[in-house]
Amino acid sequence: MTLAAGILGGAGYTGMELLRLLARHPRARAARITSREHAGRAVEEVFPSLRGRVDGLVFTAPPESPESSGGEDWSGCDLVFCAAPNGVAMRHAEALLEAGIKLIDLSADFRLRDAAVWERWYGEPHACPQLLEEAVYGLPEVQRERIRGARLVANPGCYPTAVQLGFLPLLEDGLIETGGLIADVKSGVSGAGRKANLATALGEAADSCKAYSLPGHRHHPEIAQELQRAAGGEVGLVFAPHLLPMIRGIHATLYARLRESAPQEELQQLYERRYADEPFVDVLPAGAHPDTRSVRGANICRLAVHLPPDGRDGRSVVVLAVEDNLVKGAAGQAVQNMNLMFGLPEGEGLEDAALVP
Amino acid sequence: MTLAAGILGGAGYTGMELLRLLARHPRARAARITSREHAGRAVEEVFPSLRGRVDGLVFTAPPESPESSGGEDWSGCDLVFCAAPNGVAMRHAEALLEAGIKLIDLSADFRLRDAAVWERWYGEPHACPQLLEEAVYGLPEVQRERIRGARLVANPGCYPTAVQLGFLPLLEDGLIETGGLIADVKSGVSGAGRKANLATALGEAADSCKAYSLPGHRHHPEIAQELQRAAGGEVGLVFAPHLLPMIRGIHATLYARLRESAPQEELQQLYERRYADEPFVDVLPAGAHPDTRSVRGANICRLAVHLPPDGRDGRSVVVLAVEDNLVKGAAGQAVQNMNLMFGLPEGEGLEDAALVP
Amino acid sequence: MTLAAGILGGAGYTGMELLRLLARHPRARAARITSREHAGRAVEEVFPSLRGRVDGLVFTAPPESPESSGGEDWSGCDLVFCAAPNGVAMRHAEALLEAGIKLIDLSADFRLRDAAVWERWYGEPHACPQLLEEAVYGLPEVQRERIRGARLVANPGCYPTAVQLGFLPLLEDGLIETGGLIADVKSGVSGAGRKANLATALGEAADSCKAYSLPGHRHHPEIAQELQRAAGGEVGLVFAPHLLPMIRGIHATLYARLRESAPQEELQQLYERRYADEPFVDVLPAGAHPDTRSVRGANICRLAVHLPPDGRDGRSVVVLAVEDNLVKGAAGQAVQNMNLMFGLPEGEGLEDAALVP
Amino acid sequence: MTLAAGILGGAGYTGMELLRLLARHPRARAARITSREHAGRAVEEVFPSLRGRVDGLVFTAPPESPESSGGEDWSGCDLVFCAAPNGVAMRHAEALLEAGIKLIDLSADFRLRDAAVWERWYGEPHACPQLLEEAVYGLPEVQRERIRGARLVANPGCYPTAVQLGFLPLLEDGLIETGGLIADVKSGVSGAGRKANLATALGEAADSCKAYSLPGHRHHPEIAQELQRAAGGEVGLVFAPHLLPMIRGIHATLYARLRESAPQEELQQLYERRYADEPFVDVLPAGAHPDTRSVRGANICRLAVHLPPDGRDGRSVVVLAVEDNLVKGAAGQAVQNMNLMFGLPEGEGLEDAALVP
Repeated sequence: MTLAAGILGGAGYTGMELLRLLARHPRARAARITSREHAGRAVEEVFPSLRGRVDGLVFTAPPESPESSGGEDWSGCDLVFCAAPNGVAMRHAEALLEAGIKLIDLSADFRLRDAAVWERWYGEPHACPQLLEEAVYGLPEVQRERIRGARLVANPGCYPTAVQLGFLPLLEDGLIETGGLIADVKSGVSGAGRKANLATALGEAADSCKAYSLPGHRHHPEIAQELQRAAGGEVGLVFAPHLLPMIRGIHATLYARLRESAPQEELQQLYERRYADEPFVDVLPAGAHPDTRSVRGANICRLAVHLPPDGRDGRSVVVLAVEDNLVKGAAGQAVQNMNLMFGLPEGEGLEDAALVP
Repeated sequence: MTLAAGILGGAGYTGMELLRLLARHPRARAARITSREHAGRAVEEVFPSLRGRVDGLVFTAPPESPESSGGEDWSGCDLVFCAAPNGVAMRHAEALLEAGIKLIDLSADFRLRDAAVWERWYGEPHACPQLLEEAVYGLPEVQRERIRGARLVANPGCYPTAVQLGFLPLLEDGLIETGGLIADVKSGVSGAGRKANLATALGEAADSCKAYSLPGHRHHPEIAQELQRAAGGEVGLVFAPHLLPMIRGIHATLYARLRESAPQEELQQLYERRYADEPFVDVLPAGAHPDTRSVRGANICRLAVHLPPDGRDGRSVVVLAVEDNLVKGAAGQAVQNMNLMFGLPEGEGLEDAALVP
Repeated sequence: MTLAAGILGGAGYTGMELLRLLARHPRARAARITSREHAGRAVEEVFPSLRGRVDGLVFTAPPESPESSGGEDWSGCDLVFCAAPNGVAMRHAEALLEAGIKLIDLSADFRLRDAAVWERWYGEPHACPQLLEEAVYGLPEVQRERIRGARLVANPGCYPTAVQLGFLPLLEDGLIETGGLIADVKSGVSGAGRKANLATALGEAADSCKAYSLPGHRHHPEIAQELQRAAGGEVGLVFAPHLLPMIRGIHATLYARLRESAPQEELQQLYERRYADEPFVDVLPAGAHPDTRSVRGANICRLAVHLPPDGRDGRSVVVLAVEDNLVKGAAGQAVQNMNLMFGLPEGEGLEDAALVP
Repeated sequence: MTLAAGILGGAGYTGMELLRLLARHPRARAARITSREHAGRAVEEVFPSLRGRVDGLVFTAPPESPESSGGEDWSGCDLVFCAAPNGVAMRHAEALLEAGIKLIDLSADFRLRDAAVWERWYGEPHACPQLLEEAVYGLPEVQRERIRGARLVANPGCYPTAVQLGFLPLLEDGLIETGGLIADVKSGVSGAGRKANLATALGEAADSCKAYSLPGHRHHPEIAQELQRAAGGEVGLVFAPHLLPMIRGIHATLYARLRESAPQEELQQLYERRYADEPFVDVLPAGAHPDTRSVRGANICRLAVHLPPDGRDGRSVVVLAVEDNLVKGAAGQAVQNMNLMFGLPEGEGLEDAALVP
């Protein structure tokens, strides 16, 4: 059996990355891919790095209307990845599911469970609130069993994946004060998507660093929602994203306060135990500092937990989490979810080592 | 009058930067420069970017013994900048001062007031504890008047400059809880100096980001000491440095908790008022996010103060501070101190705009 | 006396760079600056790196029609720099000159002496062919005396400056076969201007290298025209530009064949002699390889001449030429021309050392 | 069957890359790896990017003497990759072959067929001239059949691979003048190896470009030797390498003169025909300009052939060739050779798409 996957809105970085990962997946292939801009052009022409690896695939126009989504447009597909901007998947989801096609949405459309919150952050009413309940938040380390049975998976955002994997062990065990979490996160420019944009031009963003969106970033409510689920209660979070002069990679530096003092070994063991059976979360030895390149191109989140000197009571904990925003933070996690949804080995096609140097 | 400046240990990045800045200073010039490795070679040969701008200057060997420092080695010099590694200046300071030559030390030797703390962090006894009392910490925004009268200035570290300028207004006015400060700082590789080092090789550090020295960084005690001076009491600080794939630049992201809620406008005014007369601190308009390139090559620290959403009580404050680690974080600040110590206009030779793009 | 300079189309990189250079020029200042997009906004707001260095300058709308150019729009200006895209200066030149305002055009409008060639490469008729004869090609190393008396200077392109300065000594002395010149040139992305453009996005252009425009680049006819002037006859040239993952800098690697064998020393002396009195051309010692960073931010072109092993007859010569495309390749050379046109010392405001590292 | 591969001198970039490629090879695995510096340390500890992908492999000390190479040190290995510096493989080759272990040497020891030439360029006598005759130059596109039967393969250098693949079709068909070839090649820093080196420090090499080794580079004789083999006669070559601010990637820009005019289509067909059956050479459509990122991490060389305007007779031809210096330019080609030598499908383990962005 080979799964036939469609990609809705495939001309961006997550689309490219899905194509790269599917090209080396032994039991799935990209069968269709849409792009309004590139309809009619060979994928190889738009993405020369994929020459010889995409079997003559050609971009087609996206379905004209949501209704047609369930019809011939995706006929033959077992599932569709939505790699389009926010606001598209929610218009196509119902028709796809009705046609028996599973949907893994890499946009934000089904991540927030409260349609009112979605509307506040995304500036328009949610077009498909009736599926929010059914949609499963696609973080396998938390929702593995529900993902296996899901028709519709909301693939987590890049920042939210790193921040959650970093905070989860502490929150689930109730070890930290939940009111004052801080996530200082650093991202390469590919997180902003594949588009002409002065702010991410090499002449503007290279050899420089800046914070952005301090007054409010759309990943804030997603992270808060999921941390609250883990904590079983309210969570206070300051979320500070930064743009770094690199292509891929997220480095999350997470700050919290332990409720009670604990030796580093205890935290180390907590993290190792929590992720012992997780194929794509790697807890580094005590004292380590992961670098983002150590996960470049790989579907892995690497973690380290520290108790730094704090001039206080030693209860300040810092967690470091790195991932490739396009892999474990997007397309790789989507393929991991696909594997789960279709009963394949979870790591199928995802076990390559990082590209270093 | 033209000041004749000596540079002790000038083959590193701070030495290069001093030469660049002195080359365009109307009333000072580099008169001597030492380097054990390059003794006898023309500066232009070692640093081709300075061809035509250093008047035939040749590296000489450093003084054989500290005692000779006051003698002929620096004869003709009005002052000496020490740009050597830690542990050198403290061996030469006494002889220089006795010879009537002022010393601006860009290393850490005279930054910590407590010789025991120095010994703990730098791994050897302090060679000149008797001058620690006299040495003036060279942050003009705090010590301007003392610097004017100083013979010996301890030029602040690069991280400490950004962190202090960011926190000072809040601490001086007693507005924040001093026990839980967090400084998440990001630096370009030039902060690690000009040397062959695998960790900062382009093949290792480009397109990547990592935290380092979480268990303890030598700038921690320096920052703590000075923040405590500003706060008039104990300060708890978590200090987390990160290495970024860029040449120059420090971005400090500073987190604190206000004792009482305050509107953003009030904090904005606090910062604008605090630095209204400071020629080299620039408070950005409310809502801004400075990028490090905006100070590339310039002797400026740019600041922004934010009250981000925190899912809590709104008392979380975030300050962004950027500087060029080699200019306001090192050589530029040293020249600013020189100007003060010799009664020159404070900004002489330091008013160039940043090099952008 | 302080010259008042206007900048037509100042929102791009050459506009920024003119502002940076004028800010530190002792006898000139930016008095007006236009931008259709940013009209009404403070320059400091658009370019935060210039905060405090542009005296409250505000972008104004460009003149509505060419005719108004000579009128009140530029009243008070001694000269106008045109930093707008190609095709603008040729519409404003006549009115400016009639109003007694000198024009230094950084676009390509007045570089080609033959209007028909211009039309072929730029796709529209030339709007002001009557001034092509009067316009002086602003390469001071060739046209210094004519520039001093010029009302209208065509500032050379970035590639043409480096290629000409590299080939000139060989061509002027008739030492090389003129039929088979090759210019393999490498440029940072700022040469493509300050604009949103997918091809120069950091996510696309970083950590990569590519040739472009091999079938024909607009700088080809400009270079050919000027090399022919130097050679006094036809010149055959292959011109191969490459895009490099860096912000600033051009590295030209120039290949030619000597008519007769010559020892390296002879060529070295030729270059040193040719540029002995040139303040902004630096001939490196024999055997050197200049790097582009050695001229970062500086108005200098550095050269080296080599006779590499060629497995043949030793008559293959390679010249290396580096410059900052925005300085000696654009704004710096424009200021150098301004100095000449107004009788100021040629190097006024242009003598800063490069920013390294 | 799974091949057991040893890696002699595996702590550099080619060693890392061999480990990465073998980790995903279905029929080979790294069984032993040596490093003098890291003996006793787990590979995962030295290369954290390989955590979980190297099965507990531990660095061992290299064989004490060449003689021991054939003995127990490599027992169990079917082949050994030598990824050590030049001068090591030639000391171990004989013992390995005698023990029935095949050797793929990624250093330069067996690339030059003339021991005297080797001595001239590498500064010491060749330690094993008796095997130079037997050694097969491992460029599959030329030597495929001989590689299949080889015991000892000299894996080509990174520059030589790109330059040869670019020039071969023209030389083999006798279409170009062989006296005046020019190879202007650009490389990322990983080509210089994994070592502490000031010249390739990020603070020195980032945001800059420079030529190097114009007076003579060790790849020159290797390229000349092989181009002469293809041309069946003497070849004159100027070889100009450049260092670029990128991690991986080589861009070769090759210049030659056609003996007779030919339309571009003819050359295009020549290249397409020559490489029609080559799995790892990709001829781009007419007019294309490959970028190095399009082969990042992939075992592919992409080519484009151009007839640029030359202001002469149109007989100037330019070939563009890009490869990842660590893959098709080193470790990937070595694995390709291993596949051939052991009768595996040539592309086994080598078919991943490039990592873009």
